[in-house]
Parts: sequence; structure tokens; C-alpha cells
Amino acid sequence: MDRDVARTDSPSHISILPVTGIGEIIAESDLGGIIAEHSQLQDDDVVVVTQKVVSKAEGRVVPLDTSDPDAKKRLIESEARRILRRRGDLLITETHHGFICASSGVDLSNVEEGYAVLLPVDPDRSARRIRDRIRAACGASVGVVISDTFGRPWRNGLTDIAIGCAGISAIVDLRGTPDANGRVLVATEVCLVDELASAAELVMSKSSGIPAAIVRGLMSEKFRDSSIKDEVIRHPQADLFR
Amino acid sequence: MDRDVARTDSPSHISILPVTGIGEIIAESDLGGIIAEHSQLQDDDVVVVTQKVVSKAEGRVVPLDTSDPDAKKRLIESEARRILRRRGDLLITETHHGFICASSGVDLSNVEEGYAVLLPVDPDRSARRIRDRIRAACGASVGVVISDTFGRPWRNGLTDIAIGCAGISAIVDLRGTPDANGRVLVATEVCLVDELASAAELVMSKSSGIPAAIVRGLMSEKFRDSSIKDEVIRHPQADLFR
Repeated sequence: MDRDVARTDSPSHISILPVTGIGEIIAESDLGGIIAEHSQLQDDDVVVVTQKVVSKAEGRVVPLDTSDPDAKKRLIESEARRILRRRGDLLITETHHGFICASSGVDLSNVEEGYAVLLPVDPDRSARRIRDRIRAACGASVGVVISDTFGRPWRNGLTDIAIGCAGISAIVDLRGTPDANGRVLVATEVCLVDELASAAELVMSKSSGIPAAIVRGLMSEKFRDSSIKDEVIRHPQADLFR
Repeated sequence: MDRDVARTDSPSHISILPVTGIGEIIAESDLGGIIAEHSQLQDDDVVVVTQKVVSKAEGRVVPLDTSDPDAKKRLIESEARRILRRRGDLLITETHHGFICASSGVDLSNVEEGYAVLLPVDPDRSARRIRDRIRAACGASVGVVISDTFGRPWRNGLTDIAIGCAGISAIVDLRGTPDANGRVLVATEVCLVDELASAAELVMSKSSGIPAAIVRGLMSEKFRDSSIKDEVIRHPQADLFR
């Protein structure tokens, strides 16, 4: 009986490591450099960074008059391509990127009173920049995932998903791979970056000020050029729920 | 400069460990006992088990005449409360449990030719049984998550989510927790068990025959009685997309 297989020294196990000590991120902060400085990155690590600090580093923070009840609504609408649902104060929108989420991703938590944080203009580009800065700072070739916390239909609770990525397969295509009985799997495409974002959230906390985590132990074959825009956002014509 | 924080010996890191050597699971297999035998479980581990082996252990395998093109369709309809969408051979249904997924969860992969695997009748009960069997076999008090691979609207690729759970918080409610600026978060409920299912998938593979994984390192406060049925399945009246 192979009782040793689940030991933490198993070569195939995965570790999720919080990156602590990052401190406050402001406009022009060198986020990739700061993450490299506060961790010991290795090739084929995946760095998951929350959208909030990416947006702050990119100056995507705007003043918001919280005493004007319509100000937030106008801001949400300006960040939206269209409104999908309204219920009371809740707006579900499709952002200019094609994400479907609450409030166009406009966020008032973990930001100074009187300001709102917007999503990065191009989160895949944000991920590529962080990846390049990390490589310049410490030499490690890593994958980068920008995560955000989204709701979803039919199920309660939010989960972290990927809104941008670089250097890591967004989708892993298992089509053509034989299953354990030798039958060829017909349609199993796994959204690896969403699973990485969710895994990283396990060591973060909305209130603890840990805005990044490292996922270590993925196989090298999972690392390649990729983007959320091209691989994960479903074309409206292919979508049964639009 | 706190360069040591992301080391794998950080007390707050999380490990995801594949459980290997489980072998073929058949009807009446003592799945909890087998998992306990092939791992070294500790209190406050989370055991994530894929639905396929849970269904097999519970005898939820039915003959299916794959030469009859309508046989699978009839089986899918019999497992459904209603059909949400049809496109070609693809049926998106609401199962009797209230899950919204492709083909009512009826699955022909990783099963003998001429048979189909159905979802467990009550996956939360399945999780409770596995949890009890593990405790009886090795004494460890663990959380259990039954995972399955679901698609979702608007985003390509599948991710693993939780269809049943026991002994672990399905939803972690951060409402009332102050954010890093001392402001109270208004509506952050995280679906912990879906994030655990996704994290566990990172060490499994559809074709490698690893049907279970251990997530180690969650804080004790995350462990409590809970169920997918009561906490995660959204009440139709609260759902904007039904």
C-alpha cells in the first residue's frame, strides 16, 4: 500500500504561496519588480495578482462623489458595452473587454474614500508587462494571471477568475487525449487560468492585504503565450446565454 | 526586505497533493476507506473527490445503447428537471438537484463501452458518507468536496466545481469584515468549495486516473457543517439568469 504518495514532498504536488509585505501600491508602482522583491520566484512559477493592485499601479483610480447616488451608476454605465440585468442597485453589465460581471468591475472596497477603482484597460497587456518586469528584476520566467472576484449565474458565492494572463495556457485542450479506458475524450477544454485564480484566492483574503500569490509545481508544458481575450472570452455567436 | 515569505515552508501556504494508486472503483467500493489507505490524512485536510468515482462506488452506472442515437438523449432528459438550451446534440439542463450543466451530468468518458455514469442522487450525502468513512478508517477529521467538471456561460473552457460537500464551509461570508482601509465590505461571499474543487483539478488529469486530491493548509475556522444544496444552489427567485 502506497501510503507515501500524498506527502508534501511528492514531486507532483502543487504549492500556493502568499506574497506578503507588498505594502500600498500607488500609480507608477513597479508592481512586477515589487512582487519579485518580496518572493523567491523560480522558472515555471505562476504569479497570480489581484486586479485591484494592478489597476492602482496603472492609475485606474477615479474620484467618485459617494454623496451623489447616481454618480456610481454613471461610472458603471461608462465602463459598460451594455447592461444585461438590473435589480435594485445591482447592475450586471458586459464591460468593454467582454467580461460579464456586477457593476462593470467598478469597485469601492480597499480604496480611499471618495475614489473608485476601474478594471485595467487591457488586462492581458497588464499581465505581459508584469511578466516582463519580473523577468528583468530576478531572471525568472513565470506565468502571470490577473485575477478578479466575479459572481456567476445559478450558484451563490463569488470565485476568483482570470481577467488577464501572460506566459501560461489560458485553456488546456485535452481533446484527442485518451481517457483511462483508451477512449478519446471529445470535448474537454479546461480553463487553467480560472482554476489558478481560484486556487490563489485560498491564500489571499479580501481584508488581509495579500494581493499576490505564487502557484508552484505546474508542468512546464502548461507555459505558453496566451490571452484571456483570444481564448477565454466566448464569442457572442457561440454563447447560448447571451 | 522580507524575501523569505514565499518559501514553501511558510506556515500560511497551501499544498495540493494528488492521491495516487487508488485503482479501479466499482459498485460497493469503500471509497472513503480506500482514500484513507492511499494518503496520510491529517485533521483539517480537505479531500476533493471527483464525481466519477463517487458515482461508480454508488452504482450510478447504467447500460446505454450507444448505437441508438436517441438513447443518450432520453437518459439526459430523465435526469433533468428541465431543458434550458439545445444546440445540435448539446443539451443544457437543470438536473433534479438544481445543477445547470451539459447533458444533466451524464458522462460516457472513463467508463466501460456501453455504459454511462450518472450524478450521485444526493452528492452532499455522498460527501458526508466519505467523511465518516475516512474518520472511521484513520481518525482524521477532514472536509470532503465532491467535484465535477462544468462549463459556464460567457467563458470558454471548463472548470471543476463542487456538487457536494461535508465538514467544510461551502460559502465563506466576509460581510461585515473591514477591508484594508477599515471600510466594512458589504457583499463578499466567497464560494470556498468551488475554489477548492478548481485547485484540486490542478493535480488531477482527465486521463491520468487520479480521482482525488488533498488540499492542506486551510485555517481551522473554515471547517463546519455545510452543504451545496442549502448554500450554493441559488434559489430560482434570486437568480437573474433563469
